[in-house]
Amino acid sequence: MPLTSDQLQEIEDQRATPRQTLRATAPGIERHLYTAIPVLDHGFVRVIDYMGDDAAIVQAARVSYGAGTKHVQNDEGLIRYLMRHWHSTPFEMCEIKLHVKLPVFVARQWIRHRTANVNEYSARYSILDREFYIPAPDALAAQSTVNNQGRGAVLEGAEADRVLDILKSDATRAYDHYQEMLSQDGQQGLARELARMNLPANVYTQWYWKTDLHNLFHFLRLRADAHAQYEIRVYAEAICDVVADWVPHAWAAFQDYRLGGATLSGKAIDCLRRMLKGEEVTQETSGMSKGEWREFMGVVED
Amino acid sequence: MPLTSDQLQEIEDQRATPRQTLRATAPGIERHLYTAIPVLDHGFVRVIDYMGDDAAIVQAARVSYGAGTKHVQNDEGLIRYLMRHWHSTPFEMCEIKLHVKLPVFVARQWIRHRTANVNEYSARYSILDREFYIPAPDALAAQSTVNNQGRGAVLEGAEADRVLDILKSDATRAYDHYQEMLSQDGQQGLARELARMNLPANVYTQWYWKTDLHNLFHFLRLRADAHAQYEIRVYAEAICDVVADWVPHAWAAFQDYRLGGATLSGKAIDCLRRMLKGEEVTQETSGMSKGEWREFMGVVED
Amino acid sequence: MPLTSDQLQEIEDQRATPRQTLRATAPGIERHLYTAIPVLDHGFVRVIDYMGDDAAIVQAARVSYGAGTKHVQNDEGLIRYLMRHWHSTPFEMCEIKLHVKLPVFVARQWIRHRTANVNEYSARYSILDREFYIPAPDALAAQSTVNNQGRGAVLEGAEADRVLDILKSDATRAYDHYQEMLSQDGQQGLARELARMNLPANVYTQWYWKTDLHNLFHFLRLRADAHAQYEIRVYAEAICDVVADWVPHAWAAFQDYRLGGATLSGKAIDCLRRMLKGEEVTQETSGMSKGEWREFMGVVED
Amino acid sequence: MPLTSDQLQEIEDQRATPRQTLRATAPGIERHLYTAIPVLDHGFVRVIDYMGDDAAIVQAARVSYGAGTKHVQNDEGLIRYLMRHWHSTPFEMCEIKLHVKLPVFVARQWIRHRTANVNEYSARYSILDREFYIPAPDALAAQSTVNNQGRGAVLEGAEADRVLDILKSDATRAYDHYQEMLSQDGQQGLARELARMNLPANVYTQWYWKTDLHNLFHFLRLRADAHAQYEIRVYAEAICDVVADWVPHAWAAFQDYRLGGATLSGKAIDCLRRMLKGEEVTQETSGMSKGEWREFMGVVED
Repeated sequence: MPLTSDQLQEIEDQRATPRQTLRATAPGIERHLYTAIPVLDHGFVRVIDYMGDDAAIVQAARVSYGAGTKHVQNDEGLIRYLMRHWHSTPFEMCEIKLHVKLPVFVARQWIRHRTANVNEYSARYSILDREFYIPAPDALAAQSTVNNQGRGAVLEGAEADRVLDILKSDATRAYDHYQEMLSQDGQQGLARELARMNLPANVYTQWYWKTDLHNLFHFLRLRADAHAQYEIRVYAEAICDVVADWVPHAWAAFQDYRLGGATLSGKAIDCLRRMLKGEEVTQETSGMSKGEWREFMGVVED
Repeated sequence: MPLTSDQLQEIEDQRATPRQTLRATAPGIERHLYTAIPVLDHGFVRVIDYMGDDAAIVQAARVSYGAGTKHVQNDEGLIRYLMRHWHSTPFEMCEIKLHVKLPVFVARQWIRHRTANVNEYSARYSILDREFYIPAPDALAAQSTVNNQGRGAVLEGAEADRVLDILKSDATRAYDHYQEMLSQDGQQGLARELARMNLPANVYTQWYWKTDLHNLFHFLRLRADAHAQYEIRVYAEAICDVVADWVPHAWAAFQDYRLGGATLSGKAIDCLRRMLKGEEVTQETSGMSKGEWREFMGVVED
Repeated sequence: MPLTSDQLQEIEDQRATPRQTLRATAPGIERHLYTAIPVLDHGFVRVIDYMGDDAAIVQAARVSYGAGTKHVQNDEGLIRYLMRHWHSTPFEMCEIKLHVKLPVFVARQWIRHRTANVNEYSARYSILDREFYIPAPDALAAQSTVNNQGRGAVLEGAEADRVLDILKSDATRAYDHYQEMLSQDGQQGLARELARMNLPANVYTQWYWKTDLHNLFHFLRLRADAHAQYEIRVYAEAICDVVADWVPHAWAAFQDYRLGGATLSGKAIDCLRRMLKGEEVTQETSGMSKGEWREFMGVVED
Repeated sequence: MPLTSDQLQEIEDQRATPRQTLRATAPGIERHLYTAIPVLDHGFVRVIDYMGDDAAIVQAARVSYGAGTKHVQNDEGLIRYLMRHWHSTPFEMCEIKLHVKLPVFVARQWIRHRTANVNEYSARYSILDREFYIPAPDALAAQSTVNNQGRGAVLEGAEADRVLDILKSDATRAYDHYQEMLSQDGQQGLARELARMNLPANVYTQWYWKTDLHNLFHFLRLRADAHAQYEIRVYAEAICDVVADWVPHAWAAFQDYRLGGATLSGKAIDCLRRMLKGEEVTQETSGMSKGEWREFMGVVED
């Protein structure tokens, strides 16, 4: 993630000038502000701004005149209650704004989360940088043999070499040609909005992305999950660390009830009750499909 | 708007403790934080939090590493350009959170703006205060004789007295009965979620309401408009004053292009061109309906 | 639910004229179209239009050229899979439009579901009918003694009589005064947009409400739940019956995975595993609060 | 747009089986159902389903029991009134579902319209086809010399040849390598979710896209506009033709008030009034920037 010295200077300038405010502040996230958290080979997540803290969740839930409750312990208990009972609106009262640099194919998954505000770097207006995601050797995975939408073992040896070679040389050539088509040296130069079509999906783009804590939790639940594609999961994980520092009580509740929790179907609950009474239940006697049973076993067994 | 001394103390406490932050701050809105701006007879608007300033709009539009452009003048020009060309996403990068106290019939109009976050005081859970909106004499308007959805002249004399008398006595009685039904003194007491059904639409409720600047502008364009009902317009106007102090460049652009602007139809543009060439155009020769022509005249004539 | 004979005639007219279409049709819901399903004392739900069926969910999930899969059984399995794995977008491909008549205090809860389209009868423009919700005797519940936001036993005897008397007489008086203030007989007449403020929250309003199946399921999960207020739950239940006829496979999956399912926290899963190994776990050794433990027991015990 | 014979057969099958329905039907759009309207070299727009017609807009605006008004003429007038006064909710009562095949760089612009439902063909799960957008000679435009975000003259001669050659050969090579990396012939085969990153932004994707008429009009206003990129504009124009057949009154109002209309700023209205009084107004005396003045002249001059 090679930021230019100008960019690093701008970040340092912003961190060098604390200001006074009467707003709620969350000290844990202040130390992240503006700095670039590296993700993948050229990507990053930067916290640009935030609104609210744990107390702001409580304050909104109570529609109160002051901030939070008198006792931090009560705040924590109420936040757990709200999370457990799917009271989502108080969590919407916190907001975060991120600057993210990410490969286009990751951006295309990310943008499917619609309840967010986005300003993306425009390749109609500007020229993209020569930066492409090339997987690290341990992220170069084979197609899963059991799941159409997943990864299997890591590629090795000659096959890994061939793949890396293709990805690098195709990206390099595509970018060379992008520049060549854009060039106005001795020719008109193709419109930027057209030339970009030659760039592959591993080229990096960047955007400002702003969302509220409820929708961010929804994003994290899906994208920090083991089934998410690795390349978006690492962004989600970087954001998880930020959220844990920002709203520690909300984060702890989210971890317990969502990330670490599980949803059981009516059939699964029925099986569970039979098992707790001592009955031996198998997939055949469960009424579940094989896939459902496997997922159910994942919940009840260590 | 009688805040209790406890509430006033809580507000003062929050204003008494400035904190340090590395975030962008907007000095113009800091002075509004927490204080209650009175609206109608018992209502208010309080700014609880905000995110971003004029520079944040520019920063997002450019997906930049630093804050805004180097020169404030450029920020202003770019903001005007964005507003003129309906580039709405940069304005979504600013966010505001308000605490509002308002009559239920106003809340019902307000909530139709869906792109916002809301936590309302729960009358299932809590008991509402004895506070009702009773129009001031100059807001006691007759039904318009030309517009089904509007007001005419102010009521006067005996009719005005009768109306005020009805509104006051019905509200008082409804609230007395509300308390009577809730009472657990010598009886079980009706459930709060049921008892509230006896309260009229001029009872005050309150909520935390959070939205981004783009959607706030949309709200203000419709609700600070001359055709909006007076009782919601006064809230919109109070918010306009806050916005003007918060993001002065964006506010100025909004005033020029939206509040003070007008949209012309293809037919209207055609008439305009004919008029500018010296032709005498009338409603009959305009191709417009009477209503359209009247609105068109409102634009082209002082 | 006294529909006028004109209204009944309009409904019959619409049901009398089948048309040809090339669109997907869902026979199960066709028989509901336009007819008013009674809810509460004066309310109703009417299905006005719908888009899609079970096969449309499959078709969208596959981005296919034809309709659904070749075999209905596969459709069912895929729909269950999508529901289990929180793939929400294919369910968004079905849409329903309802005409609902409901008390204002129910409408105020309902409207909090923001991802829907709404056109409400305008009391600025028109005059509301003299219709109020008066609870049936068995819906006249006391405040819960254990849950701030809930109901306890049914009121009986003199207390029930007093409450019903208050609700009826206050509604009658409020409406009489509403008409009196509006009247232009020998006076100007108060503006409709003001006069409505005298009406209590149990007055009936009506709206057209349109939403997609995913968001409808979300609405039903919260509002057909045992913790929802009775007066909105009966609407949700009426809609459940319609959905079961419209998209039977999606409905069955929703019942199993959502309505009949439960979400367990990380702590709860841990307890469960200990219990399945034969350990005696109590609230004290569970790490859960009393409230959480009670809810957990509700899941694992019959 | 080479549909396979299987796909054409599926389309024909769907068109061959009219069904009976009690829902509102719009004959004008029925004839478009399922058939692929060609756009660009391999793309298409297919209407999969729709809900509502012109009368449904009126019906919702009136919250009525029957369909529309008695007289079609009244429907038209009301629809024009609603459009003129920005009453957007009645237009939300119509819905359309499209199947679209489009280049990825177009999809990336399109998806920024958030109020829509989308199911995209998954390149994590499936293998994309070998189809790339290669501009027709007259769409091969140079970068604009006056507008950073626009096109100038068409490229010609050797430069055009070079560009087409690059686009074709890079796409071909990228796809060959995509297949090579995926291949499980004598090797493990790279995961699909990774291999796709080698494909350029002109590869075709496809999705089901569903939205309401209000949001569709917003999309069309921005994307059928002369400033939109040509490659998305042709999709918008294809949809315009469908909408004109579907809801002719709403379409006519949209054309007059939005597509053919213009928004004037407060400054512009002021200039206009001065000009109508005979004053000679120039950019210098207008108070407008050069850009604003040029746009204003575009409105008032033929």
